[in-house]
Amino acid sequence: MSNDLRELRAAVLARTDRRRRLHVLGVAQEIDTLALRWGADRGQAARAALLHDVTKGLTPAEQLKLCAKYDIVTQSWERTEHKLMHAVTGAAVARFEFGAEEAVCAAVRWHTTGRAGMTLLEKLLYLADYVDATRVFSEARALRALCYEDLDAALLRGLDLSIQFLLAERRAIHPDTMAARNALLTR
Amino acid sequence: MSNDLRELRAAVLARTDRRRRLHVLGVAQEIDTLALRWGADRGQAARAALLHDVTKGLTPAEQLKLCAKYDIVTQSWERTEHKLMHAVTGAAVARFEFGAEEAVCAAVRWHTTGRAGMTLLEKLLYLADYVDATRVFSEARALRALCYEDLDAALLRGLDLSIQFLLAERRAIHPDTMAARNALLTR
Repeated sequence: MSNDLRELRAAVLARTDRRRRLHVLGVAQEIDTLALRWGADRGQAARAALLHDVTKGLTPAEQLKLCAKYDIVTQSWERTEHKLMHAVTGAAVARFEFGAEEAVCAAVRWHTTGRAGMTLLEKLLYLADYVDATRVFSEARALRALCYEDLDAALLRGLDLSIQFLLAERRAIHPDTMAARNALLTR
Repeated sequence: MSNDLRELRAAVLARTDRRRRLHVLGVAQEIDTLALRWGADRGQAARAALLHDVTKGLTPAEQLKLCAKYDIVTQSWERTEHKLMHAVTGAAVARFEFGAEEAVCAAVRWHTTGRAGMTLLEKLLYLADYVDATRVFSEARALRALCYEDLDAALLRGLDLSIQFLLAERRAIHPDTMAARNALLTR
């Protein structure tokens, strides 16, 4: 691991609570193996994993402050969805506070909803976040195996699981999630 | 029943195959009761029901001809989905061949996908189509009861069932369907 990466890891973990640290390190481990499997840039993958939940511990009010600070425009209903907000504010913090490159920020930006036409790095972060070692739900194991066999099939399965979860919870399904799924189906 | 309505019914049934006729008449019966329950215009409701599947028996090639004839713009992936196309072409035929009024055409237009901010008539057609007497799947019965108790709850349930069906079938979920559902959740 490079010194830069070591420093980034220390800086991110310092502002992350204990429970989430395990998840962040789990995602970093998973994405490294995935990057090797699918030929992605391992440095970028590591930075994306370390930064992906950097604002997840913030309160809704703190999220909104970051939106104001970084001129982030959202729809009003998105502001009540913590999971959506941390991806948006996380990308801004990755960029402006950690100087992360565009590709890494984009992976953070889309790691919760997905989007149509995801890059390889975006797919890897989306999936690593779904199946890292701290995810113990029954589907995670099968999905993890699929990640190493057929990346787009795994992505489609992950998006479907998300949509089913949101249906069951009676929560809004983000247009980007649906567009991500439709794009995979209609290639 | 007015003479106009009698004529419309005869004209529509003449171009509908036997199996679909039962469904169209079932929807007309269901929407009439729903219109009484929720205070909608019964004449409009009847015309919407009679016209809603007027192009469903056409082939994909015939659907595309109607798109060209009536300047209907669609996305390419929509053109491969027969269920989407018949709602779009049906609305054009309702308007230009049967002279149906705007509200009725809109109900036909959105009866398959739904949309955010549906009118009462649009909701009634969407639901009558889902739960008419020819629908024998297990959820239809419970949904029919809900239609008479809480119209928006029934609509949300109908949209959820559609999304679950499309997930299971690995088919695209239309953005309008998701927007319809999200609009109900975030009112």
